[in-house]
Amino acid sequence: MIEHPENAAEYKGLTVNEGVENLPQVNPYATFKRKKRTLSAEEYVEGILRGDITLLSQAVTLVESNLPSDQLIAQKVIELCLPHAGNSIRLGITGVPGAGKSTFIEALGTELCHQGKKLAVLAIDPSSERSKGSILGDKTRMNELSVEANAFIRPSPSAGSLGGVARKTRETIVLCEAAGFDTILVETVGVGQSETAAHSMVDFFLLLQVTGTGDELQGIKRGIMEMADGIAINKCDGHNVERAMAARVSFKNALALFPPTESGWKPYAETCSAVEKTGILDVWKMVEEYIRFTRANGYFDHQRTQQAKYWMYETINSSLLNGFYQSPDMEPLIEQAEQRVLNNELSSFIAAAQLLERYKNLKQQ
Amino acid sequence: MIEHPENAAEYKGLTVNEGVENLPQVNPYATFKRKKRTLSAEEYVEGILRGDITLLSQAVTLVESNLPSDQLIAQKVIELCLPHAGNSIRLGITGVPGAGKSTFIEALGTELCHQGKKLAVLAIDPSSERSKGSILGDKTRMNELSVEANAFIRPSPSAGSLGGVARKTRETIVLCEAAGFDTILVETVGVGQSETAAHSMVDFFLLLQVTGTGDELQGIKRGIMEMADGIAINKCDGHNVERAMAARVSFKNALALFPPTESGWKPYAETCSAVEKTGILDVWKMVEEYIRFTRANGYFDHQRTQQAKYWMYETINSSLLNGFYQSPDMEPLIEQAEQRVLNNELSSFIAAAQLLERYKNLKQQ
Repeated sequence: MIEHPENAAEYKGLTVNEGVENLPQVNPYATFKRKKRTLSAEEYVEGILRGDITLLSQAVTLVESNLPSDQLIAQKVIELCLPHAGNSIRLGITGVPGAGKSTFIEALGTELCHQGKKLAVLAIDPSSERSKGSILGDKTRMNELSVEANAFIRPSPSAGSLGGVARKTRETIVLCEAAGFDTILVETVGVGQSETAAHSMVDFFLLLQVTGTGDELQGIKRGIMEMADGIAINKCDGHNVERAMAARVSFKNALALFPPTESGWKPYAETCSAVEKTGILDVWKMVEEYIRFTRANGYFDHQRTQQAKYWMYETINSSLLNGFYQSPDMEPLIEQAEQRVLNNELSSFIAAAQLLERYKNLKQQ
Repeated sequence: MIEHPENAAEYKGLTVNEGVENLPQVNPYATFKRKKRTLSAEEYVEGILRGDITLLSQAVTLVESNLPSDQLIAQKVIELCLPHAGNSIRLGITGVPGAGKSTFIEALGTELCHQGKKLAVLAIDPSSERSKGSILGDKTRMNELSVEANAFIRPSPSAGSLGGVARKTRETIVLCEAAGFDTILVETVGVGQSETAAHSMVDFFLLLQVTGTGDELQGIKRGIMEMADGIAINKCDGHNVERAMAARVSFKNALALFPPTESGWKPYAETCSAVEKTGILDVWKMVEEYIRFTRANGYFDHQRTQQAKYWMYETINSSLLNGFYQSPDMEPLIEQAEQRVLNNELSSFIAAAQLLERYKNLKQQ
């Protein structure tokens, strides 16, 4: 829905090969590292299936790599892992910076690990550069969780197009599931289209909110609230308890006005404090209730297959559009046409028709 | 945002030439009608610019036609009208069947005509077949408005892909504005992606609601509420007044929880009764306030140019994807691949890669 103007422009940014700057750095002295690279797809898969975290990490690095030779192995690994994937609960978590996502994920994750769950924490953040404190980029922010033997934390694939970053995260889910992770958390930043991408790969989509006058919501993009299967109002601690409780009632009333979800599930809000580790299990109970509910009425599997279908078409569409938008001959023409459209000198449709005609001629040359 | 699974599939339905069944019926005995068809683009434009409704109607028929020869004239007409277009307020209206859209549009439209406004009422409904009581299809439902000299009512272009139908409606807006219509209403049915399309061509997007326990909202797609610039709670009459007033307060509270809009405008709710013609002007006042507000802060023009850009890219994207999805060679392969993905036998990405490879080879033959 609220896909909109940005959506079309998003295609302009789509890249299949995301540029040399994102290639993994190869250190000529790191012969040991090079040696590991010569593993076959079957060897990676064998390692993944027995839960070898080192091999899982290396395979994820291949998935994230833009080198065609790496991609060749990566795709084979994914194909072989696929029959062993799917046995997990996939939870998407979004919220603006400041909502306390890291602390919340650490609190929830540690709790789940103590329950004996195997937890993978991934992220989608096309704007991230790992070196610059992106989400999950700094594992030290998750001191407690990162030392859990049952936790696998992987930052967002580094900066690139949303399509590329999302694809890599989705493929990483497959590998993690094959390695026996039964709970997958996918974190996004709540400010853009990453939420649609995350929403398209998780079973339950959680919006982490904080109380306030509206300023705190500034960063959240409209449409995300109606996408959420549940809301957790964080920072329900200290002087903030009363406000958080009041917010919970407000959200409850607001959610009741929303049209019913496709699943029949009625989203609701819980309060919690990630810092004080209170209410965290109430939020998790909400997720479990949802899973039970949607498993019972068949929506759980339905959504999963719809998502798989979605990603097939999404991948095809991005690839088809890339040819046009990444053509060096077309780029200046597209820019000119856009400018004339913005100046109201040319109709959107005539501009499009002219560009398409030009593209057709180019390809026939 | 909530664009989602359906979105990719939507592309499968995209058609540039929408099939022979939609071609205008040509009556061999209607020589007079045939004769009119021989007008040049310039003659149509001259007629449109002096406000000739008959010529405007005929030009819109050309816009809606799928005959290449008609399209050739239509595109020329649009190009020539473009410098004279844009001087209107464009209002999108959505709501589920039963919300009273027709009655509301009649009440509002008649009022605006009496104020001396020139009003065009259009629609986007890809599922419509004019013969089968589609929205606006039955002008008799708007007895009062349809006899107003200042009103031009045009049903949705007949059934076809959303992309095609939306394009035609958007082009019709250009012609109507060139003909001097200063207020454009675009109606949609509130149940699908038509809302995104309508939202991408109007200045103000109004959601028409009725009170109730939630069942009445059943048909409205999630995400539409966060798209609305305002809500009108209709059927505030008789025994329903109290409930409608209460609903207004509920919506007010809910809207306050939504993240701020890009325009800075704070959407709110008004009550009205289209049947009793009360509150209609309050709704219109809301629209006028919005226009004043967004004109003052520059958002009005900003949104218009963003929309023009959006439609350029949207048209390009649809056309590029059509080649793939409408290839008779690809269709069975796409279906097979989708089935294997749904059965979890094949990863979404590998399926996409295989199909794209096949398509590339096909084109090289």
